[in-house]
Amino acid sequence: MSDSSRKTRLDPFGTSSIEDYEYLYEEFGIQPLKPLLSEMPNATVAMRRGVIFGHRGFDRILKAIKVHEDFAVMSGIKPTGEFHLGTLMTAREVIYFQQQGATAFYCIADVEAYEDNNVPLEKSEKTAIGNIADLLALGFDLNRGYIYRQSKEERVKDLAIAFGRRVTLATMKAIYGERHLGLYLSSLIQAGDILLPQMKEFGGPKPTVVPVGVDQDPHLRLARDLALKFKRKFGFVSPSSIYHKLIKSLDGSPKMSKRAPMSYFTLEEKPEAIANKISNAFTGGQPTVKEQRKVGANPSICPIYDLYLFHFFDNDKDVVKLYDECRTGKMLCGECKSRLIEIVTRFVKDHQRKRLQYIDKAKEILGFS
Amino acid sequence: MSDSSRKTRLDPFGTSSIEDYEYLYEEFGIQPLKPLLSEMPNATVAMRRGVIFGHRGFDRILKAIKVHEDFAVMSGIKPTGEFHLGTLMTAREVIYFQQQGATAFYCIADVEAYEDNNVPLEKSEKTAIGNIADLLALGFDLNRGYIYRQSKEERVKDLAIAFGRRVTLATMKAIYGERHLGLYLSSLIQAGDILLPQMKEFGGPKPTVVPVGVDQDPHLRLARDLALKFKRKFGFVSPSSIYHKLIKSLDGSPKMSKRAPMSYFTLEEKPEAIANKISNAFTGGQPTVKEQRKVGANPSICPIYDLYLFHFFDNDKDVVKLYDECRTGKMLCGECKSRLIEIVTRFVKDHQRKRLQYIDKAKEILGFS
Repeated sequence: MSDSSRKTRLDPFGTSSIEDYEYLYEEFGIQPLKPLLSEMPNATVAMRRGVIFGHRGFDRILKAIKVHEDFAVMSGIKPTGEFHLGTLMTAREVIYFQQQGATAFYCIADVEAYEDNNVPLEKSEKTAIGNIADLLALGFDLNRGYIYRQSKEERVKDLAIAFGRRVTLATMKAIYGERHLGLYLSSLIQAGDILLPQMKEFGGPKPTVVPVGVDQDPHLRLARDLALKFKRKFGFVSPSSIYHKLIKSLDGSPKMSKRAPMSYFTLEEKPEAIANKISNAFTGGQPTVKEQRKVGANPSICPIYDLYLFHFFDNDKDVVKLYDECRTGKMLCGECKSRLIEIVTRFVKDHQRKRLQYIDKAKEILGFS
Repeated sequence: MSDSSRKTRLDPFGTSSIEDYEYLYEEFGIQPLKPLLSEMPNATVAMRRGVIFGHRGFDRILKAIKVHEDFAVMSGIKPTGEFHLGTLMTAREVIYFQQQGATAFYCIADVEAYEDNNVPLEKSEKTAIGNIADLLALGFDLNRGYIYRQSKEERVKDLAIAFGRRVTLATMKAIYGERHLGLYLSSLIQAGDILLPQMKEFGGPKPTVVPVGVDQDPHLRLARDLALKFKRKFGFVSPSSIYHKLIKSLDGSPKMSKRAPMSYFTLEEKPEAIANKISNAFTGGQPTVKEQRKVGANPSICPIYDLYLFHFFDNDKDVVKLYDECRTGKMLCGECKSRLIEIVTRFVKDHQRKRLQYIDKAKEILGFS
C-alpha cells in the first residue's frame, strides 16, 4: 500500500473497515449519518466517532427535537443472555434519546428468542429480570419510558395480525430467506414493536427512532413498508432508524458469538474473567515488540481499539492519541490492554453494584414479586 | 346408465354424489363414519343419512361418551354474514355433542374473517352479535360452553406463536397453497382454537371433536400434526373431527356463495324472500310434467331434496318416501317446493322470534353494553 493511499484512511473514527459498511449505502439505501451531525449539538461519542454511521429518515427526528415535537425512541433486547457490548450500545442510545425528550420504548423480544433461538418463555422471563435491571442501572427513566415483553403485550400481537394480510411470502423470503413460519411471525411482531409507540394509547402517530445494530436493518425495512401500507388505517409516520457498527470479536473470529465464549464478554461476568478475555484478545499488533516499535500496529483490525472507540474512552482526544501511538509503535499491545482492563473493571464493578439495586424493580415490571 | 348400475345407487341417504367424497377417503385418509354408527345410540339424522359421512379419530370420542370421560366439542363461524345452512349444520352438531356430555367451545373466527376476507374486526364484531344469538336460539348451553372471539382470546394467539416454530413453509404451501402471511397466521390461530379445550385452564388434555364442513379439513390436518409435535409440552390428545357434506347450491351453480344471493339463504332473511329463492331453485326435475310423470326426477342432483335430507325432515321415513315419490315421478317439483317452503317458513319464523330474545345476551358475551 502506498503512503498516499494509506493516508486517505488515516481516520481514528473511520476504522472498523468502514468499507464493510459502504455497500449498505448503495445496496440497501441506508444514508450516511455524518452529513447530519452538524445539526446535532448533543451528538454522542458513538455518533461523532462514526460508530453510529448510518440512518433511515433520521432528519425527521432531528426536526422533532428542534421544534420540540413529540417523538419516541424504540429498541430492545432478545433475552437469550446477559447484557453484552452490543446491547449496551443500544441501551445507551435509547437512554440518550430519552434524555433528548423522547418517550422511550424498550422491548424484551421473548417471542423472537423463542422463534429464533428456541428459548422457552419460562426461561427468557428469568433472563429478562437481569436485562431490565441493566437498563435501569444505565439510566433508563421509567417515568418517560415503557418496558414490556412481546409475549405479554397484546397490542403488538394484534398489530402483527393486522399486518399479516399485507405481507406476501415473496417479501418475507426476500428479507429473511426461507425460514419457518414462527420466524416470519416474530418479524411481524417486531414490526408491531416498532410501530407500537404510534398507537392511540401512546398519543398517536409520531416520529420514532429505532437505534439498532446494522444487522437488524431487515426489521426496519419491513416496518417502514408496513407503516406505508397501513398509513390510512393507523396514520403511521414512517419510522426512522440509526445503525451502529458491530464491535469486532475479541478472539479474532469474524463475529462475536455466544458459541465462542472468548469472543465477547457480558456485563455480568466476574471482572477477573473479563480481564482474562481482554488479556487473551486478538489485536492489530505485530509478532514482536521490535517489529511493532518499527512499523507500528493496526487499530483498524483491533477489537481492543474498538472497545476504546465504541465504549470506554469518553474523550475524543484520548482516542486520537491512542490511535496515533498505536500506529506509530509508541504504544504496545500489552500496555494498551492493561489500561483497558483497568477502565473496564472499574465500569463493570460500578455497574454490577448499581444493577443489584434494580433487581426488585425489574421483577415488579415483569409482574413477579 | 343401465338399470343395474342405477340400482346400486338407489340410496336416499347416498345422494349428494357420494362419489365426490370417496376420493377423500383414499387421498386424504378421512375415514367413513358409517362403520361406527352402530355404536352410537343417539346418532343424529345427519349422521344416519350420510350427511355427516367421514371422520378422523372419532372412535376416541365414542369411547369417551361410553365411559363418561371428559371430552370437548369445538367449532365456530367466520363472522362474515348471517347464519346460513352450513353454519346451521355446524351449530346443530356442536349442540348435539354438548347434549352428549361435551364441554362446548364455539369460536367467532374474526381473525380469519380479516385475513381471508378482509372484514375489519370493527365490522365482524357486529355480525358476531347475530351469530351468537342464532347459536343460543338453537339451544347452545352457556353453562357448559364457552363462546369467544379469536381476536380477544390471548390463549389462541399464544398457541399460534408456540406452534409457528414447528411449521415449515413447505407444510403451509402443501396444505393451503401459496398465500399471504396473514392467511398462514390465521391457520396457526385456528390450530390454537382446536387445541384450546385441552389447555390447563379448561381441565387439560382431553378428546375433542371438531364438526365441520369437509372443506375445513386442512385446518384439522394442521392441528393434528401440531398436537403431535407439541404433545410433550402440552400433553395434547390428537383432536378428532367429523365432516358433513356441503349442501348443493339453490341456483344450480357448483357452490353456494355470498356472491350469488340466489344460491343460498340465511336464517335472517324475510320468509317471503326465502320462499322466493326456493320457488326459483334448480331441481332434479324434468323439462315437462309429462316427462317427469313418465321417467321420474333425480334427487341426487337436487338442492331441494338436499334441504329435506340435511335439515327439514325430522323423520327418516319421510325422506325415504319423498325419495321414492321423486324418482318415480309421483311427486312433481312444484308440490315438493311448496311443502318445503311451508316447513322452512315455520322454522325460520320460530327461529327469528327466539333469536331476538338472545340479542342482549349475545352483546353481553361480546363485552358490549
